Amino acid sequence: MSIKVYLAGPEVFLPDARGALNRKIALTKAAGLIPVSPGDFVIPPQPTKREFGHAISKIDEDMMDSADAIIANLTPYRGISADTGTCYELGYMCAQKKLAYAYTNVATNHRQRIIDHYRGEVALDTHGRLRGADGLAVEDVDMIDNLMMQGGVERRGGVVISHAAAADALYTDTTAFEECLSLLAEQVGAG
Amino acid sequence: MSIKVYLAGPEVFLPDARGALNRKIALTKAAGLIPVSPGDFVIPPQPTKREFGHAISKIDEDMMDSADAIIANLTPYRGISADTGTCYELGYMCAQKKLAYAYTNVATNHRQRIIDHYRGEVALDTHGRLRGADGLAVEDVDMIDNLMMQGGVERRGGVVISHAAAADALYTDTTAFEECLSLLAEQVGAG
Repeated sequence: MSIKVYLAGPEVFLPDARGALNRKIALTKAAGLIPVSPGDFVIPPQPTKREFGHAISKIDEDMMDSADAIIANLTPYRGISADTGTCYELGYMCAQKKLAYAYTNVATNHRQRIIDHYRGEVALDTHGRLRGADGLAVEDVDMIDNLMMQGGVERRGGVVISHAAAADALYTDTTAFEECLSLLAEQVGAG
Repeated sequence: MSIKVYLAGPEVFLPDARGALNRKIALTKAAGLIPVSPGDFVIPPQPTKREFGHAISKIDEDMMDSADAIIANLTPYRGISADTGTCYELGYMCAQKKLAYAYTNVATNHRQRIIDHYRGEVALDTHGRLRGADGLAVEDVDMIDNLMMQGGVERRGGVVISHAAAADALYTDTTAFEECLSLLAEQVGAG
């Protein structure tokens, strides 16, 4: 069986993006799966920055259309939540009923990260719902990020892996990624 | 023509979620479109918080499956980026080749918000790419958030509207939402 896996995550923004992507590509192959990786292409020059963005968007969507599964890196990115592009991609693959796995390299769950964002200044409203000082509700469903992501993965039989990576290896630690690979390979009988 | 529009956004987390959703529902009807709104349901009790989250995830995905179009509120949420659940939903609808529009109530574009996040401490790397002090690349494609969102919308013929709302009306100002409604209604010949 040849299962193609789209490797979604913010690694493309790293100083050594190529190295990080290559490691994930090699690990995917070692698991008996076929990697489909953003960053594996050359964009021809475009008239405007916007059109350059469109060209990347098209290539990434074409890659996802060609893939059978996604492993999404939902590690918090520039704040308390996952990279938004990765979230779009996870939704994109879930809508196509593809196999979906996800992981995060921050073990603190979504609820606690939100509370930390408010420096602990949260309080129950009159309906018993926890809210920050700005009035926004604190999501409390025992998940790693907004429920659409973890719900989308788990309701399709996928798994979300949470791992506490060292601060200086937040986007390069592949422990949780490898666990996703292993579970996916087992699910599809690869290797 | 009866076009159903899924109203994606973080309004469900507001103290007056019901009021904010009702205003968007009324505006959608006034534009000759049929609103499909998260929050328009009662979740039966579930054994665990996680399962409660799954139940919401299922209802939201079922609603999206029933809809013909999405208008996504991508206003930055608890940080410099859009609500991650809304990003998942936009990707979910784009994968189904539905009509897609989006808006933000913060006029400052993605590139500048990232630079502000680094308090201006960004520098060009040896390849001429702008990076923050942590080494992460500053996306520079003239868009309002990660390129997957704006690319997904614009490449399908939709429009992304940017509007500078007052700080105290960041999640309640409907100017940009109404503009999306108007453009969508025109596109599908509604009203």
